[in-house]
Amino acid sequence: MTVTRQLVNYLLDSRLDAIPADVQREAKRALVNVVGCALGGADHPAMDMTIRALGPYAGPPTSAVLGRRERFDPLLASLLNGISSHVHDYDDTLPKNYIHASSPVASALFAYASVNPVSGPDFLHAFILGFEVVSRIGNATYPAHYDAGWHSTGSVGVFGAAVAVGRLLGLDAERMTYAIGLAATQAAGIREMFGSMGKGFHPGRSAQSGYMAALLAEQGFTSGRFPLEGPRGFAAVTAASYDLDRITDGLGRDFDLLVNTYKPFPCGIVIHPTIDACSQLHHQHGITADQVAAVELRVAPLVKDLCDKKVISVGLEGKFSIYHAAAIGLGRGKAGLAEFTDEAVNDPALKRLRLMTEAVGDAGVSEDAVVVSVRLQDGRTVGMHLEESLGNLKRPLSDAQLEAKFRDQAKVLAPAGVDAAIAGCWGIAEMADVSTLIAACVPDDR
Amino acid sequence: MTVTRQLVNYLLDSRLDAIPADVQREAKRALVNVVGCALGGADHPAMDMTIRALGPYAGPPTSAVLGRRERFDPLLASLLNGISSHVHDYDDTLPKNYIHASSPVASALFAYASVNPVSGPDFLHAFILGFEVVSRIGNATYPAHYDAGWHSTGSVGVFGAAVAVGRLLGLDAERMTYAIGLAATQAAGIREMFGSMGKGFHPGRSAQSGYMAALLAEQGFTSGRFPLEGPRGFAAVTAASYDLDRITDGLGRDFDLLVNTYKPFPCGIVIHPTIDACSQLHHQHGITADQVAAVELRVAPLVKDLCDKKVISVGLEGKFSIYHAAAIGLGRGKAGLAEFTDEAVNDPALKRLRLMTEAVGDAGVSEDAVVVSVRLQDGRTVGMHLEESLGNLKRPLSDAQLEAKFRDQAKVLAPAGVDAAIAGCWGIAEMADVSTLIAACVPDDR
Repeated sequence: MTVTRQLVNYLLDSRLDAIPADVQREAKRALVNVVGCALGGADHPAMDMTIRALGPYAGPPTSAVLGRRERFDPLLASLLNGISSHVHDYDDTLPKNYIHASSPVASALFAYASVNPVSGPDFLHAFILGFEVVSRIGNATYPAHYDAGWHSTGSVGVFGAAVAVGRLLGLDAERMTYAIGLAATQAAGIREMFGSMGKGFHPGRSAQSGYMAALLAEQGFTSGRFPLEGPRGFAAVTAASYDLDRITDGLGRDFDLLVNTYKPFPCGIVIHPTIDACSQLHHQHGITADQVAAVELRVAPLVKDLCDKKVISVGLEGKFSIYHAAAIGLGRGKAGLAEFTDEAVNDPALKRLRLMTEAVGDAGVSEDAVVVSVRLQDGRTVGMHLEESLGNLKRPLSDAQLEAKFRDQAKVLAPAGVDAAIAGCWGIAEMADVSTLIAACVPDDR
Repeated sequence: MTVTRQLVNYLLDSRLDAIPADVQREAKRALVNVVGCALGGADHPAMDMTIRALGPYAGPPTSAVLGRRERFDPLLASLLNGISSHVHDYDDTLPKNYIHASSPVASALFAYASVNPVSGPDFLHAFILGFEVVSRIGNATYPAHYDAGWHSTGSVGVFGAAVAVGRLLGLDAERMTYAIGLAATQAAGIREMFGSMGKGFHPGRSAQSGYMAALLAEQGFTSGRFPLEGPRGFAAVTAASYDLDRITDGLGRDFDLLVNTYKPFPCGIVIHPTIDACSQLHHQHGITADQVAAVELRVAPLVKDLCDKKVISVGLEGKFSIYHAAAIGLGRGKAGLAEFTDEAVNDPALKRLRLMTEAVGDAGVSEDAVVVSVRLQDGRTVGMHLEESLGNLKRPLSDAQLEAKFRDQAKVLAPAGVDAAIAGCWGIAEMADVSTLIAACVPDDR
């Protein structure tokens, strides 16, 4: 039986009560995180631009958008939910494949559930299935797919949106195959967009494309029958090497939600160790920006590859600059949304720190780690070898930290709405209709 | 100066009166061809499915769809125009890179011009620019991009739609760069879809995605600055080797419209020589299906690679079966739309001919050629070495043949509409507003 067919059969046969309790619990944590991120990004300029560009062509305004007052058709709402939840680079990360899997899946599901009655358990189930499909296809094609330059959150995320919506639509095996096929043939998103709004666009467009794939498949719109494994299928076309068994091995038994992580800082995951270590040095030694004479970082080679941007002028670029990471850690001792604005990136003190920082790729340093050495103006040198960055699997954010992160981002909601939204995520398995949660995520108009 | 920047400068500076007359003339031939194809595909089941799936989410119905009575928002209309004009595999082909460039460009432009005032000369100019951008990016990444499994009509076509709409929107250099960037990061479409509706979906989705890219760029939605040439840009990510100079060399001087071709048969271009040769044998020798004992084809290796489908049951599969090509040529002596229906593919006489046909890839046979050998039941063997297939650059369809092809497909229009539509394509450079042509392409409701 083909990999696609095995996957389709699993998607049709899966039952929520067969999914372990710890997986369901982690799915709720992922929802708390991604909904918070969507609220935090809801008023980003990229959202307003998208609404100005595409709003005039939107269909009947039936779907809510998380964190916004306007309503649009659910396809545009999917795009918007995806942009908002990823634009600050604050959403979750799978360390196995660097995919931010919740955004494309949840973005489509919230739009779908905004225009169709969906029970909490059905929503949770579809979310888990979509998340696992994304991660498994990601695992099967990692690292070749990512190394080629694909932003897997977009290029793989589309499958999760398609199967999650497809499951709620009740697609049969043939049509679920088409949904996967029409997702495969819309798979897109390149890493050259990093540091621009194009990155946040990826999970949004994937949510929208996956949703569309499921709708077309429902009507019988056909695709190739071997979209994942065929000689011109997704894996062969986009990855120089791959292992499709990783899509099907342990399906229904092993869940990657259990190895999902949540970011403490709104930027690329690979600069987290540097922020964490430099912030610790800032606080331990009372370092201020003007005391620093030189900074040397030893980082994993991938970090240098991804984040070697020193001369930057735009906040989004700061999210992928290892030099900016060192600068805000040492100079400010923290990394909130305010440290990744255009203003912060152009702060002369931070700019000076960036320019005096050197980064060396070192295969002996893991992607969770960093070795920092700071020479001060007074001749002293201080340093740190950080092995495990805050937010990684060994130092995960607690439920309370996730809630605090949510509250910090949910400025578009009134306090009562924040409480209701958080409670709705935790209580989704007992919710009769997810519209209750969605309503809590819409700002009060008064 | 980067390749993207050189291209952007050209797109902003180009003037229609600097484009040679023969190029403008060929652009009109391309329009006659693609509009005819859109009319021919307008009532295909894939169109009805798409409308059922996505119509409920469409925006205000301001845009016409070629060959349909319904109106939708222009983004959905772009998708529909693209599906209809490619679903029969009857549109144009660039032999240099196998791209069907008119469909993604014209599909977006007709939707745009349906909701915005666009003069004929501006439309023609934008079409030429979009077409050339598609072909040049196609040339730069061919054959590696295509060989990897990309259906370039989709994956490269998106650039043409983005820059053509972007030109009509009057984007400045920065925003035209974003339009190209947002096109690059939506580039998609894999060859595993061949033989399904997914193939026709590609130029449609590219038209829609390119249109969207231009709209977002207009509002300032940012992309990476090096979408074509960056280390994680379109070329590096999707082609193992490429030559970006082919995008810019001779820009404004050399036009690939002059090497565009139009299909006489509604199927993959690479099976045209076999249809042509087998049809000639049918007529010359009065061959009927039941007289044939065995068929041997020697074809270019690519043909065997693309079209090695012998056991088929769906009309769309027949468009990519070298065996079906031989069968309809020998058995029917023609290849119209009727030879690629499900009924034709399941015709027992044609099925028998397919099964007795063998195809051998031979590097000594060009992609325009075929060597056919037919053994008859009476012991005779007849054969032909066809060097140049009808419709290729050495045997192009005449204007009259293009018009006949248009009329054969335009069954959805009343005769007066057909005349007006053909006249509109030829006379576009003198048209005050393209809405005149679009109105002629909408079926009379009476």
